[in-house]
Amino acid sequence: MSEPLIYLDPDSPLSLQNQIRGKLVELLASGAVPSGNRLPSTRGLAEQLDVSRNTVVLAYQQLLAEGFLVTRQRSGIYPNPAMIPKHVASVERGGTGGAPPDWSARIRVPTLGASVPEAPADAWLARDSFLDGSVDPTLYPMAEWREVTRLALASREVREWSRRSPDIDDPMLIEQIRTKILPQRGIRAAPEEILVTVGAQQALWLLVQLLVDREVRVAVEEPGYPDFRTLLALREAQVLHQPVDAEGLIVDEALDDCGVVYLTPSHQVPTAVTMSTARRQALLDKAAACDLVLIEDDANSERNYLGQPHPALRGMDRHNRVVYVSSLSKVLAPWLRLGIMVADPRLIAAARELRRVTVRHPPPHDQRAAALFLALGHYDVMLARLGQVFRERWTALRDALNYHLQRSVVTAPATGGTTCWVAGPADLDADQLVAAAAKRGVHLEPVDAYYAACDHPRNCFRMSVRGIQVNRIRPAVATLANLIRDLDRGLAERLDSCSGKWLRGADLEQALRGRTIYLETVYGDPCTIELLADGSMVGRAGFADEDCDAGHWWVDGDCWFRQWRHWAYGEAVGYFTVVDGTTIKWFNAERRLVNHATLRPGAATD
Amino acid sequence: MSEPLIYLDPDSPLSLQNQIRGKLVELLASGAVPSGNRLPSTRGLAEQLDVSRNTVVLAYQQLLAEGFLVTRQRSGIYPNPAMIPKHVASVERGGTGGAPPDWSARIRVPTLGASVPEAPADAWLARDSFLDGSVDPTLYPMAEWREVTRLALASREVREWSRRSPDIDDPMLIEQIRTKILPQRGIRAAPEEILVTVGAQQALWLLVQLLVDREVRVAVEEPGYPDFRTLLALREAQVLHQPVDAEGLIVDEALDDCGVVYLTPSHQVPTAVTMSTARRQALLDKAAACDLVLIEDDANSERNYLGQPHPALRGMDRHNRVVYVSSLSKVLAPWLRLGIMVADPRLIAAARELRRVTVRHPPPHDQRAAALFLALGHYDVMLARLGQVFRERWTALRDALNYHLQRSVVTAPATGGTTCWVAGPADLDADQLVAAAAKRGVHLEPVDAYYAACDHPRNCFRMSVRGIQVNRIRPAVATLANLIRDLDRGLAERLDSCSGKWLRGADLEQALRGRTIYLETVYGDPCTIELLADGSMVGRAGFADEDCDAGHWWVDGDCWFRQWRHWAYGEAVGYFTVVDGTTIKWFNAERRLVNHATLRPGAATD
Repeated sequence: MSEPLIYLDPDSPLSLQNQIRGKLVELLASGAVPSGNRLPSTRGLAEQLDVSRNTVVLAYQQLLAEGFLVTRQRSGIYPNPAMIPKHVASVERGGTGGAPPDWSARIRVPTLGASVPEAPADAWLARDSFLDGSVDPTLYPMAEWREVTRLALASREVREWSRRSPDIDDPMLIEQIRTKILPQRGIRAAPEEILVTVGAQQALWLLVQLLVDREVRVAVEEPGYPDFRTLLALREAQVLHQPVDAEGLIVDEALDDCGVVYLTPSHQVPTAVTMSTARRQALLDKAAACDLVLIEDDANSERNYLGQPHPALRGMDRHNRVVYVSSLSKVLAPWLRLGIMVADPRLIAAARELRRVTVRHPPPHDQRAAALFLALGHYDVMLARLGQVFRERWTALRDALNYHLQRSVVTAPATGGTTCWVAGPADLDADQLVAAAAKRGVHLEPVDAYYAACDHPRNCFRMSVRGIQVNRIRPAVATLANLIRDLDRGLAERLDSCSGKWLRGADLEQALRGRTIYLETVYGDPCTIELLADGSMVGRAGFADEDCDAGHWWVDGDCWFRQWRHWAYGEAVGYFTVVDGTTIKWFNAERRLVNHATLRPGAATD
Repeated sequence: MSEPLIYLDPDSPLSLQNQIRGKLVELLASGAVPSGNRLPSTRGLAEQLDVSRNTVVLAYQQLLAEGFLVTRQRSGIYPNPAMIPKHVASVERGGTGGAPPDWSARIRVPTLGASVPEAPADAWLARDSFLDGSVDPTLYPMAEWREVTRLALASREVREWSRRSPDIDDPMLIEQIRTKILPQRGIRAAPEEILVTVGAQQALWLLVQLLVDREVRVAVEEPGYPDFRTLLALREAQVLHQPVDAEGLIVDEALDDCGVVYLTPSHQVPTAVTMSTARRQALLDKAAACDLVLIEDDANSERNYLGQPHPALRGMDRHNRVVYVSSLSKVLAPWLRLGIMVADPRLIAAARELRRVTVRHPPPHDQRAAALFLALGHYDVMLARLGQVFRERWTALRDALNYHLQRSVVTAPATGGTTCWVAGPADLDADQLVAAAAKRGVHLEPVDAYYAACDHPRNCFRMSVRGIQVNRIRPAVATLANLIRDLDRGLAERLDSCSGKWLRGADLEQALRGRTIYLETVYGDPCTIELLADGSMVGRAGFADEDCDAGHWWVDGDCWFRQWRHWAYGEAVGYFTVVDGTTIKWFNAERRLVNHATLRPGAATD
């Protein structure tokens, strides 16, 4: 072994000593170096690799201690032949006497529907990704996770969970879920009502297997979560695609003959609508009256920035009709594949059996690490931090949409969460927009996969703030606004050809002084702006005028300018202005319509 | 918060500082301490808990840095109300207006069969457990695992795997599987032929879903792995229970109309028989002739202590008819839930889709930790170590059975592995033995769950060396031997009532001098013992006399004594001896038959 083929990678996460160790083992185990060959001296290898001799000595010592290398007196260090794995001969593919099976014909399961969103691999962590599946690894306290993971692999802990039957979940984790996670959703549960699963998706799969077959009619939300529909298709269930409105899943007589209803009440997938309290109660009443079982998917656990969060449906359920499913991956760490199911003990017991024959159980060290993370209070700290970060980003997204795309887009009503459902101009082709935006590095989620029964609206797309830094939101939305205007070029009203009268200079000032402008935010709140005679202005937004600001307006040449203290980033901006009856239209420097509103005389009528 | 209810657990794996931190967060998060209340001073809390003040200071500082606590000037330290999670009200169960569903009637999946072995929870890590599911945590290099787990959670690694689509397995792990694990089984595979699963069981589940439905006839081994039969039952497959002999699964025309054959060729579950090369080739030929797909379950990867290991069936398969399934949990670390499937790329792609909608993917940090463990060579070291340990234990088990239970039990032919299939005396009730042994702390595996088509043999049980230390094997087997003799009490031949002539003193010496004794080991090898005139003796065992020993024999009073150099623990042991024609019978001090053999004049005929 005069010339070992060891290459050290300066970018490797491994230490030099670890790299040397790994490469030596690889060379020896592969049989590239016969076991009778002496290894190079530590001095020689250190010089060759340009590392300190001590680094090589430590790597050698470790391998000697493990018996992988042996010393022979006065001769040197050699591989230990007893440690070299036996390689077994294999045959070449092909040859006579047979042919491969027709594998495509062998597969008895139909091709499954696409998951959402389908996106190019590099989109997931792009700087300007609004994809819901994007993960922002900086949000998670890695030092704390490394610590609890180390503790979970302490010999004492390993002995403890080795001793458990594999069907039993970590009692420490169950206790933490019971006392820390579920109470925040208004749920009380006994240990035997809780199952830990390999992610929330496994909980849904188990429930579909257990509760659904061809005989059972299942209601799902339309639009709704496609991976749940796929699970139903695998069981050949009868499916009712029940529409969703601004209060969530519609509760009517169509549900009466469904055995099971699946819903995402916290923030509906995909619209982000939160189910109203009245609708929740109506659904629970319907369930009691028609003997329905409700599967409540709370994987996007409610984050309500406007107003109090609702309890989970299971927290409101007096009659044990709701099966609750949630994800620990989303609230603890994205790499954990841990979910929870809360249900009647009989259902939990059957799910545990089915879990055993399909995957055995979720990894015990991850269960213990999650339990320690919760017990040490890291969860509470992180939850508060995620709440702050997502609230800030979500607000920034609404502000940016409102500033750059007012009157162009409308978002579905939502009071929190991490996603916005956006409807563009009626004639927008959202597929075109998604493709054009991706070329500029801005990734949006198309919505077609969420629809099963009816055609998807062509002008809608979805934006999530999970993966995007707050300071990137405005520039990304500005890019989108330009693209939407470009795509809409043929149809947008232009200053030169629009109806109404283009006002300038003193006429413009005259027309606006003392008037009030009525408009609507992109998220559907009313907004009034009073233009006072002294050049100041007062803005009030929201149904209870809960959001107020003040600023100044003025006319300079052909343009009307305004500047708020806080709204619209506090920036001065000027528009060409046309008045057409009671409609006021604003055009940008490219003379294209950017917003319009209703103009009335006098002060706002409160 | 004058009296915080903090109790420090001296046995906790957590440091005192971590315990204080966890308890403080718990108290605050639970709302037990209103956020307006000042926390006790560090000095006060330290005195109360009897820990150093610095420990409390560090816990407080950490919580202050995380924003969980806040300082108010000249006043003290307070909980930060912004960090306290909102608890949500929940309702009481019960009340009017409805009743719970009939959950038992709702479950559409039949109760699943039992897994094997069913054992009391405390049996798994009992000192004398021969249960195959027992884990010996001391076998795994915990310090190395903690190190690679820490590396896998380094921020840089987290960023890297966050960027991947969740459907893609860790490329580093796939490369390590391809180049380190599969070649040892004689398998070459491209990356697109490999899928990482949540344990080997998930791979089997995926394959049954994909390849089997009511129309497909599937052959399984009888006796065989019950959890595979359960998967077939869930798909309502037609099942052929094909018997196993000393060469493995029997290949005959019964297989002709099976679409799929499931087998465990390395060490058959449960008999531990290794499939012979001829049988392997016959099965591959049959598969080609009858268009069969073979599912090769290699979760008990072949450990062959007598002779070379066979390549996996997939390594012998020229026509891509074999789907290979194995477990990383068994060779890397028992807590990892990682398995592998190697198959045609079309089948792998379909399995990946099904994996996505059922559990998404195996935890990415575990995939990376396993990859690093392999890359650093820890795997090679551990595999060699496990090989040595299991060989030593397996040999010790055979020696102990041969010493204590010769002529009472017979093991199925095996050349390695970690389990022994043991047939006791024909009239032994193994269920009684298992129960009686458990009472003495020795845990055996009953075999009834392995049989589906025919009644299980009443006198068989199974012993595994996975979880038992080598020095415990002989005493545990001695306990068993006593129990077997006790259970057999009514039937065992006794010295006082047996046929033949009880020889003593000079008669005995005369009868044996210069004779040769022929017998069989419990594992079926022939054995000859020459009793030379000078009081020495020579023993040869094995079909090629590969195991030889020498010793002495003598007569003392009524007993014949023998002592080997190595065999039979090198201990001197004496028996009452009866000769009945060409049969020689040995009785113990309780005058019960313990062994018998054939006696011939003169030297052994080689």
